[in-house]
Amino acid sequence: MNRASSKKVVVIGGGTGNFVVLRGLKKYPLDLTAIVSMADDGGSTGILRDELGVLPPGDVRQCLVALSNSSRLMRSLMNYRFENGGLGGHSFGNLLLSALEKVTGSFEKAVEEAGKILYIKGKVIPVTTHQVRLKMVLNNRKILEGEREVYLSQEIDQGYQTIYLEPDPKVNPRVLEEIRSADLLVIGPGGLHTSLIPNLLVEGVSEAIRQSDAKKVFVPNLMNRKGQTTNFKTSHYVNELSRFIGHDVFDHILINQKAPPKALVDVYAAEGNAVENDLDDGRVIFADMLGAVAEAPKRDLLKRNLIRHDSQKLAQELMKIVDHL
Amino acid sequence: MNRASSKKVVVIGGGTGNFVVLRGLKKYPLDLTAIVSMADDGGSTGILRDELGVLPPGDVRQCLVALSNSSRLMRSLMNYRFENGGLGGHSFGNLLLSALEKVTGSFEKAVEEAGKILYIKGKVIPVTTHQVRLKMVLNNRKILEGEREVYLSQEIDQGYQTIYLEPDPKVNPRVLEEIRSADLLVIGPGGLHTSLIPNLLVEGVSEAIRQSDAKKVFVPNLMNRKGQTTNFKTSHYVNELSRFIGHDVFDHILINQKAPPKALVDVYAAEGNAVENDLDDGRVIFADMLGAVAEAPKRDLLKRNLIRHDSQKLAQELMKIVDHL
Repeated sequence: MNRASSKKVVVIGGGTGNFVVLRGLKKYPLDLTAIVSMADDGGSTGILRDELGVLPPGDVRQCLVALSNSSRLMRSLMNYRFENGGLGGHSFGNLLLSALEKVTGSFEKAVEEAGKILYIKGKVIPVTTHQVRLKMVLNNRKILEGEREVYLSQEIDQGYQTIYLEPDPKVNPRVLEEIRSADLLVIGPGGLHTSLIPNLLVEGVSEAIRQSDAKKVFVPNLMNRKGQTTNFKTSHYVNELSRFIGHDVFDHILINQKAPPKALVDVYAAEGNAVENDLDDGRVIFADMLGAVAEAPKRDLLKRNLIRHDSQKLAQELMKIVDHL
Repeated sequence: MNRASSKKVVVIGGGTGNFVVLRGLKKYPLDLTAIVSMADDGGSTGILRDELGVLPPGDVRQCLVALSNSSRLMRSLMNYRFENGGLGGHSFGNLLLSALEKVTGSFEKAVEEAGKILYIKGKVIPVTTHQVRLKMVLNNRKILEGEREVYLSQEIDQGYQTIYLEPDPKVNPRVLEEIRSADLLVIGPGGLHTSLIPNLLVEGVSEAIRQSDAKKVFVPNLMNRKGQTTNFKTSHYVNELSRFIGHDVFDHILINQKAPPKALVDVYAAEGNAVENDLDDGRVIFADMLGAVAEAPKRDLLKRNLIRHDSQKLAQELMKIVDHL
């Protein structure tokens, strides 16, 4: 464990998947960095973007909370959502980040200050500090505008022509430094088109990943998303990511081998099916990483998130890789 | 100064007047407590009360900021007001207090936690933790409902029959303890009907003030409020407060002797005239306590607040009293 104390682990994603990885890794003596997509435009985050012109706070908030060493109360406060009136739907942490952005004049500074308030371990870095929208052109020529529309689409598995950010953003140079100097890069779990790929669409990120000497781990989702990654197997995820990264860079693929309870899978069949694994080369690591159902219930998570990784088990597997670096 | 280190100073009020006193006294080695009226229902505070059912955060926020030893940035953050959309007009600090009240289930706990976040010196205590509305029945039978209506009325100087809180609230027992154990009680400056008297309307407060062995200091406002305290002199303020306290308890009356610049008084004549002093008994202390104009400009202050006490000068005079206790 002593050797691990200086290892630099960089987690790329955004949203709930990132939260699970970071919360687990937080307890280990690591130099930890979360790189977060800036494409979110749904819910509270979308309203704040539209009304205040701020950068999207939602995914950053989740990463900050995951890395926070502050009291349980402070973490509850960050995730607290107002229920009524003009504030209805806004999480307090989003308002904190947006107000800090206004007061400091800089989203990065806001993230840094919020990190101090929350006593976070490690760093949270937005992949870009430019305002971007995710866009996707489907094979049927329909254009999905914004991450929210992509997230809600049921037609993506019919094929798409292109996915891009508009306007084409400048990468945050700190992101490239972090990726280049990482010992371990963790990609996933997380929404393929809404959390993972939007990071890879920022120019320079994929190149930095390819060039980094870090070991690269991919953690596939447990569940597919119906209409988006319907019936995807592990190889489909790896291939899709590799297309954006430039080639298949993964040294390890961390596969959960404990099937979720059939009853639960049946209940959530309308939202998506379980991801089956079809890879069995030397880089695949199998482990039980299934989260307990009791861990999951949160008001603003979808049902399918009830079937998800256990942050401690996932972190243990990642630490086995770190210990061999 | 060593003797002063254990002295307990309790400041009664709410709003900007309290802010000035507390900000000045913060720098001295005192046991400092702010008792805050819960009658505010204007602006951001009023909307939060109506929409979320919380207790009024605005005056508490000002006291917390005044007592805060956190960074300038944190203090700016607390007073930051969102400008657009559903959040428009809300100060971030108000949202913090309201979210904390929701998460903890208790306004007092919320104030305590916000105090920790802001590293405050001393304590901020709501005079009651019950929801109340300020009501005033004017001589012309008109009923003013809520502090906001009282604050905006231009008819109060025509006389009023009664002023009361509805429903009649239970006093916060901590407030009585603080008043009884105080070495110095400071009342004012602050809105007579909107900040000072609402504290005295809570049953038990006036009795505790009368019974307290503390030295009692009154700090009159520098400016009258037109239509409310038009042409009031110091004795009018003392008499009005004494009526609610039960008798004239004041050991000292701290009078600013430096007239504000005539040009400034003229500019603000529409909002009210300067308070003239008509008392000259042994308890009156005269001092230059006028604030520099440059100190004042803040977006959400009224023009008349440009003529106000200098927090350092006011604190110096109060400390002279403390040093003689």
